[in-house]
Amino acid sequence: MTTCLIIGGAGMLGQGLARSLAKGGRLKGAPLSRLALYDVVPAAPPQGGAPAEISTGDLGAPGEAERLVAARPDVIYHLAAIVSGEAERDFDKGYRINLDGTRLLFEAIRAEHQRSGYCPRVVFTSSLAVFGTPLPEVIGDDHVVTPLSSYGTQKAIGELLLADYSRRGFFDGIGLRLPTIVIRPGKPNAAASSFFSSILREPLAGKEAVLPVGTEVCHWLASPRAAVGYLVHAGDIDTAAMGGRRNITLPGVSVTVGEQIEALRKVAGEEAVALIRHQPDPAIEAIISTWPKAFDTRRALDLGFAGDASIEAIITAYLEDQAEARA
Amino acid sequence: MTTCLIIGGAGMLGQGLARSLAKGGRLKGAPLSRLALYDVVPAAPPQGGAPAEISTGDLGAPGEAERLVAARPDVIYHLAAIVSGEAERDFDKGYRINLDGTRLLFEAIRAEHQRSGYCPRVVFTSSLAVFGTPLPEVIGDDHVVTPLSSYGTQKAIGELLLADYSRRGFFDGIGLRLPTIVIRPGKPNAAASSFFSSILREPLAGKEAVLPVGTEVCHWLASPRAAVGYLVHAGDIDTAAMGGRRNITLPGVSVTVGEQIEALRKVAGEEAVALIRHQPDPAIEAIISTWPKAFDTRRALDLGFAGDASIEAIITAYLEDQAEARA
Repeated sequence: MTTCLIIGGAGMLGQGLARSLAKGGRLKGAPLSRLALYDVVPAAPPQGGAPAEISTGDLGAPGEAERLVAARPDVIYHLAAIVSGEAERDFDKGYRINLDGTRLLFEAIRAEHQRSGYCPRVVFTSSLAVFGTPLPEVIGDDHVVTPLSSYGTQKAIGELLLADYSRRGFFDGIGLRLPTIVIRPGKPNAAASSFFSSILREPLAGKEAVLPVGTEVCHWLASPRAAVGYLVHAGDIDTAAMGGRRNITLPGVSVTVGEQIEALRKVAGEEAVALIRHQPDPAIEAIISTWPKAFDTRRALDLGFAGDASIEAIITAYLEDQAEARA
Repeated sequence: MTTCLIIGGAGMLGQGLARSLAKGGRLKGAPLSRLALYDVVPAAPPQGGAPAEISTGDLGAPGEAERLVAARPDVIYHLAAIVSGEAERDFDKGYRINLDGTRLLFEAIRAEHQRSGYCPRVVFTSSLAVFGTPLPEVIGDDHVVTPLSSYGTQKAIGELLLADYSRRGFFDGIGLRLPTIVIRPGKPNAAASSFFSSILREPLAGKEAVLPVGTEVCHWLASPRAAVGYLVHAGDIDTAAMGGRRNITLPGVSVTVGEQIEALRKVAGEEAVALIRHQPDPAIEAIISTWPKAFDTRRALDLGFAGDASIEAIITAYLEDQAEARA
């Protein structure tokens, strides 16, 4: 029997993961007997499977990490974070949650390890924000990490701690650098990356979308379905093949905005494409120009992380998931 | 007028730096008006120049970093660290000093920055231990950092914090990955790297030395003189050219043990070489086999960091420095 804790269980990925685990009913080669979802706000329990335990709190508060670890979950997903814009605006808050919160969690696991030999799988979501310009056209697994945001710095430090605690045998960790998730459900928001989703999602719903950059802009994308699949796989696999290198960049599709629009045309026709209004935003163009365009993710592929086939497949999967959610 | 604080002022590098600054009398383009040396034990004051202020303490203790920063030194050298063997044996101590101590220092500077606009140059010594196998024969400036020790992890985290605090404008930082220092003065010690110095230093003093590895072993070396020169240069230079990348690997000479021995033969003759006794130590061989052999340090060279010409020049410089110390 496997027990599982998702920290950040109310977020898009946490919810998708909870649904997938409840549906699949297994993790790390055994039936899932307990699923706990923790976040700052109450997570929605997934349908089916064993009833999920829902709790709320502040990971950075004293005693909180110990309380979460006390139940000795076999697999801990640490998906919680202050997002990049907020971590840049509020230096203290970003470091308190993204660095100190992560370290408190790792320390609580180490304390339990030293008490009882406890050694869970820890899956930590890192970010492409660990990379900073100048970048090559295609970024390999051996490329240096030089973040240019406090969020990226905090994630890169989390990666280093994860690797050292794993090397020491305190837990068995995997850090995942997820691609930008497309198509995110919901509405357009203030994130610089918002348009990558909204130029597909809004026209598919018959609504207008604003494109703030040129069609030549290229980025590294994965569907929510692929991202959840990565998380489940990271909970399942044998980490022996990773050696001392516990952090990996995950497969994505490298597509230009123009290719996104062409895929939308194929799936939803000319009237959908006509809903995209090009309205250049130099501020967003400047931010996006520093982002990675493509990766060679050999290590992740060798470890069995399988991604989306194409941007067209991402759109089709989104429509399927939307139909399923309505059913 | 420039004021300077050396944290770790009692160590080999701190002492060499203090002597060099006292002798040169200038730093960051202005006369040096104040030199403070801080360490866990009282540092020896350098001869000449303005009288140095000596103080002792524990950088990880509450209020200590604030006390050091209160005098608002223009240049802060942070050379203090729990060394790699001890940081590996004592997990808590290594993280407390090497990570928390560094962060407390950076936070104290940030607090003073926010109070008064204070923005010192901060020179931080990192380490080649941030690199982990597998490594290419020649490691470039864009190679990924994957430490395989807690010490290397703590140094890599210090690098990330230094870059983020610099990007934010809280201070103006440079992180230096120094080569292995050869010839270290003193006696052979328990460090796995000890023999790189002792196979030269001991025969030059007419004493026997033990060589625990084969002559094909290759490593990245710099003289104490070059290392001190790097530290002074890092205090002096304009950091604008570094962009967001504040951490650099410094020039060294890539030499095999066999080449070290040939250089010893040229400088000190056959009788010196005859004092080296080859006594293979599989444990040391295993450790050394994971160490980097050579680097392409283009960024450091472009920034004007100039190193040793050859291993022979390192030996000659050592003999000169010894003669000067005796005079």
